[in-house]
Amino acid sequence: MTPGGGPRAAYALVDWGTTHLRIWLTDRAGTMLGERISAEGMGKLSPHEFPAVLERQLEALSASPGLPSVICGMAGSRQGWREAAYAETPVALSALPARAIGFQSGARPVRILPGVARREPVRPDVMRGEETQLIGLGIDSGAACLPGTHSKWVRIDKGRITDFATVMTGEMFALLSHHSILRHAILANDGTVPVVRPDDAEFLAGVAAGLDGHGTLVRLFSIRAGSLLNGRGSAQSAAWLSGLLIGSEIAEAGRLIDAGREGVHIIGSGALSALYRAAVQAAGRPCHVHDGGALVRAGLLTAANRLFGAETQAAE
Amino acid sequence: MTPGGGPRAAYALVDWGTTHLRIWLTDRAGTMLGERISAEGMGKLSPHEFPAVLERQLEALSASPGLPSVICGMAGSRQGWREAAYAETPVALSALPARAIGFQSGARPVRILPGVARREPVRPDVMRGEETQLIGLGIDSGAACLPGTHSKWVRIDKGRITDFATVMTGEMFALLSHHSILRHAILANDGTVPVVRPDDAEFLAGVAAGLDGHGTLVRLFSIRAGSLLNGRGSAQSAAWLSGLLIGSEIAEAGRLIDAGREGVHIIGSGALSALYRAAVQAAGRPCHVHDGGALVRAGLLTAANRLFGAETQAAE
Repeated sequence: MTPGGGPRAAYALVDWGTTHLRIWLTDRAGTMLGERISAEGMGKLSPHEFPAVLERQLEALSASPGLPSVICGMAGSRQGWREAAYAETPVALSALPARAIGFQSGARPVRILPGVARREPVRPDVMRGEETQLIGLGIDSGAACLPGTHSKWVRIDKGRITDFATVMTGEMFALLSHHSILRHAILANDGTVPVVRPDDAEFLAGVAAGLDGHGTLVRLFSIRAGSLLNGRGSAQSAAWLSGLLIGSEIAEAGRLIDAGREGVHIIGSGALSALYRAAVQAAGRPCHVHDGGALVRAGLLTAANRLFGAETQAAE
Repeated sequence: MTPGGGPRAAYALVDWGTTHLRIWLTDRAGTMLGERISAEGMGKLSPHEFPAVLERQLEALSASPGLPSVICGMAGSRQGWREAAYAETPVALSALPARAIGFQSGARPVRILPGVARREPVRPDVMRGEETQLIGLGIDSGAACLPGTHSKWVRIDKGRITDFATVMTGEMFALLSHHSILRHAILANDGTVPVVRPDDAEFLAGVAAGLDGHGTLVRLFSIRAGSLLNGRGSAQSAAWLSGLLIGSEIAEAGRLIDAGREGVHIIGSGALSALYRAAVQAAGRPCHVHDGGALVRAGLLTAANRLFGAETQAAE
């Protein structure tokens, strides 16, 4: 909610996801001049509502009506503002900005970055927004994990996204905790899911179970049985389930797109990243944690300089 | 709803599960003399309601007030009529009837058979009712699969249950179809889940994906992406998800309790058993399908003859 557009701002960088809209004003070097975070995510908006929402937020930041705006995320989906067609794997991260769609919204030049699709009949997949964090990450080769409701695992090879997989780990945890028979074991008396901590022995035991390769499906019911037979409490059960799912994700995604033993770049923030860091380390792999917000800003800035750098320099 | 107790009936055989109550009157040879099926499952009853429900159903079958009744299933759980403590693995199937709890309900002798527990800290598990179907199956050694909301896979060795695992396959299919992001791909326009057929190519493709060992979690999202990118319809998506989950169940349970390649005894009925038969055959394993209702009656009869055979003969 920091105001501060003014003459120094070169761009409005916009991460417009399903649930939230995040806007940063920066100069061409990325110096942050203003920030707005709002719950006006794509999921709550009809296509015709996007321009007014953006203008209202930018006005609150005192951004000029002609300040260029670069957007990533679900605003570029078919249900969003305007569809920015998917780039297809394998695709160079450096080639993504040029695939943005461009248009004027009033006096404002707008660019919406494309998502990335894996168009393969057996295992099709899509991302929107994460590719911009990967532009910001800026590695030449390696494996990245972006934890979340729908985690992404991405293989980068010589600057290109060559493979990726979405894993519904966060959604599975929520479904199983609240809606399955396991809720009797997991929910606390007040109906909430206990907080899981990365140093909890039950979490690490669940990670080990997920990593051992016996599979996830066949392990879930032991949470119910452990509650019935051994009186295991909700905190233990929640931690073990979280560990099982994250451990399984690491094992399965590792096999699928990332057979090596190299380090994993975890892109995220806060408590969830800490759980993933602990689990990746338990798998015996080096781990580098990067702040997700910083990377999306860095990726948007790179794209903005590519798309508008010449123009704004010429205007000086 | 067939009436027909009368003087020839030796037993009331009762399968009292969470959702249903099934009663059969038979003579000592198992000849069926009457049948009642009701929705008065354990889940709807308080402990004090069980006697009156049983008496009302038996009266409708003209059963005598002193006819012995042998019960299996959730009526013997802690939340049921009276708790019949779990027998623990490894346990001989032939030893289970002697572990029944016995009491009088009015003039009626009642026995409730125990469930079976796997009291092991890493993978505890429980069953109630399935052990009676396994008594009815009567094999000396082999692997059995009892498909359902919570499938059971059981290893029998020299007449003993040595290991088993519960797999929440049916519940996962329902949760994912109705409550996850995959519902957009799976539900038909009328909000129902399309019927899955065992000869559907998409079902068999899902089974192959489940059997291939890459894991379940990392494959689910491709259902959503296939709908977005390739326009796959709800019937295709539902069939593939069903196949993926059943194939994964076979792969995971196979690794866990059943490393061999021998045949699988499938205990069940109807459409679900047909899906499991097709999937087990796709895994290259011989498959024998047994009717679940016939086996629970056979198991209850074996138990009844063991528990009451001497008495009823003496009373003649």
